[in-house]
Amino acid sequence: MSLGSLRPDVSDFLSPYLPPNNDENLSRPSVTLTYAQSLDSRISKGHGIRTTISHPETKTMTHYLRYHHDGILIGSGTALADNPGLNCKYGGPDAREHSPRPIILDAKQKWKFSGSKMQELFLSGEGKSPIIVVDKEPADKETGAEYLACSCTDLGSFDWDKMMHILRTRYRIKSVMVEGGANVINQLILRPDLVDNLVITIGPTFLGRNGVEVSPTTGMSLCDVNWWRGTNDAVLAAHLSK
Amino acid sequence: MSLGSLRPDVSDFLSPYLPPNNDENLSRPSVTLTYAQSLDSRISKGHGIRTTISHPETKTMTHYLRYHHDGILIGSGTALADNPGLNCKYGGPDAREHSPRPIILDAKQKWKFSGSKMQELFLSGEGKSPIIVVDKEPADKETGAEYLACSCTDLGSFDWDKMMHILRTRYRIKSVMVEGGANVINQLILRPDLVDNLVITIGPTFLGRNGVEVSPTTGMSLCDVNWWRGTNDAVLAAHLSK
Repeated sequence: MSLGSLRPDVSDFLSPYLPPNNDENLSRPSVTLTYAQSLDSRISKGHGIRTTISHPETKTMTHYLRYHHDGILIGSGTALADNPGLNCKYGGPDAREHSPRPIILDAKQKWKFSGSKMQELFLSGEGKSPIIVVDKEPADKETGAEYLACSCTDLGSFDWDKMMHILRTRYRIKSVMVEGGANVINQLILRPDLVDNLVITIGPTFLGRNGVEVSPTTGMSLCDVNWWRGTNDAVLAAHLSK
Repeated sequence: MSLGSLRPDVSDFLSPYLPPNNDENLSRPSVTLTYAQSLDSRISKGHGIRTTISHPETKTMTHYLRYHHDGILIGSGTALADNPGLNCKYGGPDAREHSPRPIILDAKQKWKFSGSKMQELFLSGEGKSPIIVVDKEPADKETGAEYLACSCTDLGSFDWDKMMHILRTRYRIKSVMVEGGANVINQLILRPDLVDNLVITIGPTFLGRNGVEVSPTTGMSLCDVNWWRGTNDAVLAAHLSK
């Protein structure tokens, strides 16, 4: 599906929440946490159900954000449920150049690059090859994928500091956009030391109690808040309070 | 606490979502469902904990809404937790005249008018006396309160149609603003036949998993959506899709 044009006020709105152009932080990438939710803070109708929440104009905004990031990170649950391309369609014909590097958190190696939309886009020159973050390096490695070994607790919590440090130093990734799913988002909402920018799209719908919920284990306040109003959606950009 | 002035764009924003001035619907009041929530759809940090979510300018908007309604309805849990006044401070010195009639859903008669903020405001001429909606009329009635008997299921679900019909016909209440709590809101989100307008304030904070959550048992989509952007909050006005 082709991308609609970017609403003219979006770039001004997002500008203070984009990763810096300089290369100052040598220890970790700049991290942007971004997702779309319903009013009742659900990101899908249920586990494994791909759910459209936002207006097409917000999809263009997502690709504009991808254009500004070196990496795009999701959990394997989201990769399995949505089979996303994770490439960038914004910024002209050279999609591969502008596309962020997919980073899939897949401790237990449930997701396969082979046969995925990501592989299709990689092979056609429209996307980059993924970095798969695993508990330990597999014996059988998939062609085209790279593996980053990073220990994970029993509760599915990654060692974010170590992972981000490796992404910055070994892979030269200076900015990462985190798109989901709920487990990843709920962990990172509580990490103001690691998350530089937050961009949340709110679609005017209730997905209901059985949906997949975003809500961290404790509270977290925001600062430097701004809102953008779309045709149907509102988008919040902010920083987590330190 | 005195009320700040109304932001000049609020009346235009809310105008399509206010009860009609005419007296057409003789079977039930016009119903506005309105509340403030966090990004993670919590209306308080926990049961019985009064939590400020929205900016003071949004409080002025709430009183502007109260000015336009004949009744203001809350559940007894909210009445007990917040001890709210439920009067109207907007519209000049004659607060009592503009104040909506408090309607407290209190099937099991846990809340007492006596000693409440509502009684204080009633006695000082700053608020109206409440209608208490009960399972059955009590033997001992509190002075100043009226009782509306309306059966309730074991799950705490009121017979909304009957209640609204009585409010309209016996009490001449032509418009009701419903402010909470979560049980009441979750029921009414699924009643597009009964709820005419929806106004939700979203504060830029996460209250976390232990907070009191708004999320209906099934999904519900919205239409005629508009957003207002405050200093920190976004306010959605919409209709439930029929």
